[in-house]
Amino acid sequence: MKVLILGGDGYLGWPTAMSLSARGHDVWVVDNYLRRKTAVETASEALLNAPLLDERAAIFKAETGNGIKVTIGDLCDRSVLDNIFTIFKPDVVIHYAEQPSAPYSMMNYETARLTFDNNLQTTFNVIWAVLQHAPECHIIKLGTMGEYGTPNIDIEEGWIDIEHKGRSGKFLYPRAAGSLYHTTKVLDTDLLWFYVRTYGLKVSDLMQGPVYGFATAETDISDKLLPHFHYDDIFGTVVNRFLVQAVAGVPLTVYGKGGQTRGYLNIQDTLQCVELAMNNPVDAGELRILNQFTETFSVNELAEKIQAVGNVLNLNVEVKAIENPRKELEDHYYNPIHSGLNELGLKPHYMTDQVIAGMLNKVLEYKDRIDVSKILPRVKWS
Amino acid sequence: MKVLILGGDGYLGWPTAMSLSARGHDVWVVDNYLRRKTAVETASEALLNAPLLDERAAIFKAETGNGIKVTIGDLCDRSVLDNIFTIFKPDVVIHYAEQPSAPYSMMNYETARLTFDNNLQTTFNVIWAVLQHAPECHIIKLGTMGEYGTPNIDIEEGWIDIEHKGRSGKFLYPRAAGSLYHTTKVLDTDLLWFYVRTYGLKVSDLMQGPVYGFATAETDISDKLLPHFHYDDIFGTVVNRFLVQAVAGVPLTVYGKGGQTRGYLNIQDTLQCVELAMNNPVDAGELRILNQFTETFSVNELAEKIQAVGNVLNLNVEVKAIENPRKELEDHYYNPIHSGLNELGLKPHYMTDQVIAGMLNKVLEYKDRIDVSKILPRVKWS
Repeated sequence: MKVLILGGDGYLGWPTAMSLSARGHDVWVVDNYLRRKTAVETASEALLNAPLLDERAAIFKAETGNGIKVTIGDLCDRSVLDNIFTIFKPDVVIHYAEQPSAPYSMMNYETARLTFDNNLQTTFNVIWAVLQHAPECHIIKLGTMGEYGTPNIDIEEGWIDIEHKGRSGKFLYPRAAGSLYHTTKVLDTDLLWFYVRTYGLKVSDLMQGPVYGFATAETDISDKLLPHFHYDDIFGTVVNRFLVQAVAGVPLTVYGKGGQTRGYLNIQDTLQCVELAMNNPVDAGELRILNQFTETFSVNELAEKIQAVGNVLNLNVEVKAIENPRKELEDHYYNPIHSGLNELGLKPHYMTDQVIAGMLNKVLEYKDRIDVSKILPRVKWS
Repeated sequence: MKVLILGGDGYLGWPTAMSLSARGHDVWVVDNYLRRKTAVETASEALLNAPLLDERAAIFKAETGNGIKVTIGDLCDRSVLDNIFTIFKPDVVIHYAEQPSAPYSMMNYETARLTFDNNLQTTFNVIWAVLQHAPECHIIKLGTMGEYGTPNIDIEEGWIDIEHKGRSGKFLYPRAAGSLYHTTKVLDTDLLWFYVRTYGLKVSDLMQGPVYGFATAETDISDKLLPHFHYDDIFGTVVNRFLVQAVAGVPLTVYGKGGQTRGYLNIQDTLQCVELAMNNPVDAGELRILNQFTETFSVNELAEKIQAVGNVLNLNVEVKAIENPRKELEDHYYNPIHSGLNELGLKPHYMTDQVIAGMLNKVLEYKDRIDVSKILPRVKWS
């Protein structure tokens, strides 16, 4: 298939590009290096500094013989997608091209506005590029489990049947996210749903939980093919941050009571899920929403798991609760359904002790690059 | 009170400004004349050509002694609100500043993008201006009944209690609008709700139905104080369009089966509702949603009412069904609750035969300005 990957420089975009190229697809990636710029701007250097896209694509080609086309461009500018769609009518667009940091979106007006404009304008332009150049193209959009927030009822997969005063209807599941970043994805879903039902687009919206790890079949070829790996408070997700804290010999910092429960997945399962969505396209006029994670943990459970494995590796891991910089429930009901991807054939890679040990050992190779001053929260919600 | 009105040149913004100024409030209006520009661009000249804002404010001052401050500026530019808020810390912001035409938002990429960027960026900037300069300020945002679409269950006022698998929760009512314009208001509400619950803003979101008429206590002073009055297919709402068709001697054009039912209100009741919301502010951290209309009619019922009154005035009104340019249900369940504004004290002006006759007689004064070529639909949803 002809696959266009937006946000191809990112933590998930790049491994996805390699994986699909290795499986024989014709892959084209676009990125404007926004993550690199925001990381520099906030002094949030990644643990692993991935080479630029052209260089990585050349390394991947040399190592495997598989090509990846690269365009550097800002997707808020309509012409970038127009130019690509005119010569490469993709069968699938995988849309990762969003500013994905919740703390970054909550720093100040400028970072909030950048997040808001970038994420919504990019989604808007993806919709219109497909409408005008390739209406049969399947859009696979990365949403987030964070769109739902932590409601007091079971979280269904995107849709809910509501019985109300003796009548019933099917609706988009109501969402209430915990950061502006997550809220932009709520808005993305609303916008996609409007264009799907009005013009018959084909969209899969993958509500993904926090991803951990960095090892995929292709990153194992060379460390130069590893994705960005952030452990700072702004761009590092909780598991990756805990791994680095364990290796650095500083306490794992739990925000507040640590009862915040979320659905997590291994980066290998992100690749699997996206491929499963791609190989099982939706009908015209269908917005398919899939909850993309494999198991749920509270923050305390994550800290305990990483502490236990770290201690086997003689890392003497401590856990410390700190004031929660976010505004979120620290103890709540959480029962999200996630059967859709399993039904499509997902074979989960669970967070076993062996998996945790593998990640800790990889981080240990880069221990001298860790700057522990980057880990404590710099951004508060209030 | 110090009242800042955004979109003060508009069909509703200008009468609101006069009304609140006449009641002794300190009123400042902002507009970028977007409606005038889009009307020229689409050859949709208004029946009544309102003078520019400075001139209207001068006429109003001369006639009544009441002042209205005027700023011409684009609210997508952060500095416009910063400058105003620095010297005029409003108690209330009334936010009408959106591109409000559904057909305009559905014409092509450029008009869709303008609608999307203008409406969302303006709301974003209003939120931040209030957060940073006047956190106690009450934001009164004009939403639309169109946010809800036409669901198969009763439409509550913004919020719904959902019972699901033995548990329950309160949620924003799920919405599914029928045009991109209406969808931008769905997104506005989602965005406002995020900032309300996170930072304790005070917001009233008024889900307004289509407004008709032009006569208010202040427009009765001079025709130069009348608001824009559009009757074309792009900017004219259905009642105003039918009034002009009746006067022009062309058939009232019903889109499709004409069973589309909506909640309508007289322009005088828009002024009442906004003032009631203003005089009954919400608490910090509250998003109050009120459904703002006084009675529901199907399109066929509206056509019949206007036909009947028109015939009493010897206008020989015909009604003609034409192909529906929109994608919408033409026969549907519709039971929206609208008790909130009544509880605050709304005294409705219903669409009586006398009211219809008054509107027809006013339009008759301007009959020679009607261009019937502007009335048939130029924009299709497909």
